[in-house]
Amino acid sequence: MKVDIEELKSKIKPRLRPIIWRDENNTLILLDQRKLPFEESYVELRDPVSTADAIRQMIVRGAPAIGITAAYGMVLTIAHGSISSLDEALKELARARDILNAARPTAQNLFWATERIYRRAEDAVHNGRAKSIKELLEELKAEAKAVFDEEFEAELKMGIYGLEKISDGDVVLTQCNAGGLATGTGIGTATAPIRVAHALGIRVSVIAPETRPWLQGARLTVYELMMDNIPVTLIADTAVGYVMYKGMVNSVMVGADRILRDGHVYNKIGTFKEAVIAHELNIPFYAIAPSSTFDLKSRVEDVKIEERDPDEVRKIRGVPITLDNVPVYNPVFDVTPPKYVTALITEKGIIYPPFEKNVPKVLGVQ
Amino acid sequence: MKVDIEELKSKIKPRLRPIIWRDENNTLILLDQRKLPFEESYVELRDPVSTADAIRQMIVRGAPAIGITAAYGMVLTIAHGSISSLDEALKELARARDILNAARPTAQNLFWATERIYRRAEDAVHNGRAKSIKELLEELKAEAKAVFDEEFEAELKMGIYGLEKISDGDVVLTQCNAGGLATGTGIGTATAPIRVAHALGIRVSVIAPETRPWLQGARLTVYELMMDNIPVTLIADTAVGYVMYKGMVNSVMVGADRILRDGHVYNKIGTFKEAVIAHELNIPFYAIAPSSTFDLKSRVEDVKIEERDPDEVRKIRGVPITLDNVPVYNPVFDVTPPKYVTALITEKGIIYPPFEKNVPKVLGVQ
Repeated sequence: MKVDIEELKSKIKPRLRPIIWRDENNTLILLDQRKLPFEESYVELRDPVSTADAIRQMIVRGAPAIGITAAYGMVLTIAHGSISSLDEALKELARARDILNAARPTAQNLFWATERIYRRAEDAVHNGRAKSIKELLEELKAEAKAVFDEEFEAELKMGIYGLEKISDGDVVLTQCNAGGLATGTGIGTATAPIRVAHALGIRVSVIAPETRPWLQGARLTVYELMMDNIPVTLIADTAVGYVMYKGMVNSVMVGADRILRDGHVYNKIGTFKEAVIAHELNIPFYAIAPSSTFDLKSRVEDVKIEERDPDEVRKIRGVPITLDNVPVYNPVFDVTPPKYVTALITEKGIIYPPFEKNVPKVLGVQ
Repeated sequence: MKVDIEELKSKIKPRLRPIIWRDENNTLILLDQRKLPFEESYVELRDPVSTADAIRQMIVRGAPAIGITAAYGMVLTIAHGSISSLDEALKELARARDILNAARPTAQNLFWATERIYRRAEDAVHNGRAKSIKELLEELKAEAKAVFDEEFEAELKMGIYGLEKISDGDVVLTQCNAGGLATGTGIGTATAPIRVAHALGIRVSVIAPETRPWLQGARLTVYELMMDNIPVTLIADTAVGYVMYKGMVNSVMVGADRILRDGHVYNKIGTFKEAVIAHELNIPFYAIAPSSTFDLKSRVEDVKIEERDPDEVRKIRGVPITLDNVPVYNPVFDVTPPKYVTALITEKGIIYPPFEKNVPKVLGVQ
């Protein structure tokens, strides 16, 4: 199906706005995703330290949304401060970049976004485009807005490419929330082909595993799809294999926090098992992510998987589910080896194995 | 290792007593497993209808424990009633059997235990051993006690056979609770080799997935192993694949609710995915169950998988985790095909593939 992206924009109207930049007072507004779906409340941020905290506390989560947030977090460094020189501004921006990068160790988009804003600042200062803090601020605001706009456009493109993998009546199994809440745009990555199909009148429904420990599937994916009338069924994480065994699933579509050159996919804990089972049962497994998610330098042995507080497993929404002294292992991401990945869907095209060869080719890099 | 069962009995002293029969007043006492690990409270039962309710409400759960409970539920039919003739007793016992059997549709041990008590009653009446209700009651109490005692002895034997599959320092991944709480004896099925190893000074530790929706892993397995100082680590269900991928697991040991002649294993939802991943990563997968769990008549297409209330997924310990109108699919068991099963461990020996041939052979039946 040939889809015109401008026409598509008029058809897709996501109801959610998880990240809002208020230009009139240089404030970043985040929807507090920890409280969803029970309460829609927002936090206002005016400096990079609070922004890093918001990322760490998971007020905002999902790789692209963290990227957009971090980009604006960089902007906030020079938006309200007492910074008096461009040199000091660059120093503070470098410091802010370190603070923001430390907020979540596995999120590739985070490092990419802070670096991008930092480079734009350096470039504007060194090339003389920014002669004052005010001018530098305008440069960085434009750059952060571009991060958002490019993400939005990229997701529509991923949706259009991914459409090729969806047939009328399909049921798509996902994991976690790689939806419009995760990217900050309202479209999403894993959900992009689903949202595009839905907007074009192709029937598609979703099976969402709850995704412990944070329950992003139960709280966020279910919520955002129901808001836009896309049929969704919630399952316990334990049922992930059985729904595939029963023939209820046509494809698996997940997002990614980082993808390596050789096709290793880092994503929410639980993705690996979905991929292995899909592989075993001949169900296609797609990871859908913008090119900014790719890390072409690292090897699988270089990447550290984040482990979080044991109490995230011991409690659910603050309610204990077990004894408070039980030892817990709580990795929040896992890695899916390329052998289980049918294809990677990006805004630049669909990438098939062998990934080592095709990833740089489709992304247009060395 | 050669292990003497009588010597083992002196070494294994489980602290838990989930099912107690009080002979002096013919009362069945059940530990209310829904409240564990936060509260140890007990319910007293004096009739088969309340016993069926207790099974349905999961005050007691786990195939063998349900079997023992149902056996005593049958005994209760004639323990306190106004039954005046042996004919009426048999009629009431047939009715109690139907009521108890309806409490959980997948539990093979349930049907097996009620049938066993019923046959003993029929036999005692028809052969003239029971000439009064009182004599019949004694017959049935002896039979129910035999159900318990045989289960206890069978579990020790499964533990001794399973010991062959455990090396010093091993980490065993399990699923749900197939422990002493699940069987009612304090030993367990999946945990039998672990408990026997531990009693003999062989170091073994356990990784327990929380097992949504009911969290039997987090609430029960963790609890009973910690009570007996067996090292255990809790993980979210999503981490099941990753711990195997990371090389943290030496074997998978699970219980079973029903095993077919061809090796299909019905067990708690989530077992299938563990088996597939273990298979893919060359980790041995063992289902451990007494011979009473085997259903040699049914084929996989005959067995209905129980689905339960969507609110079990929508809520955790009464706390909502999602919107109350989200559609939910909540199967509570799954089926693992024989190709993923390394061996079945029973009290009669270890059964290897081909199961169709070896199951009847090891069990000593046609």
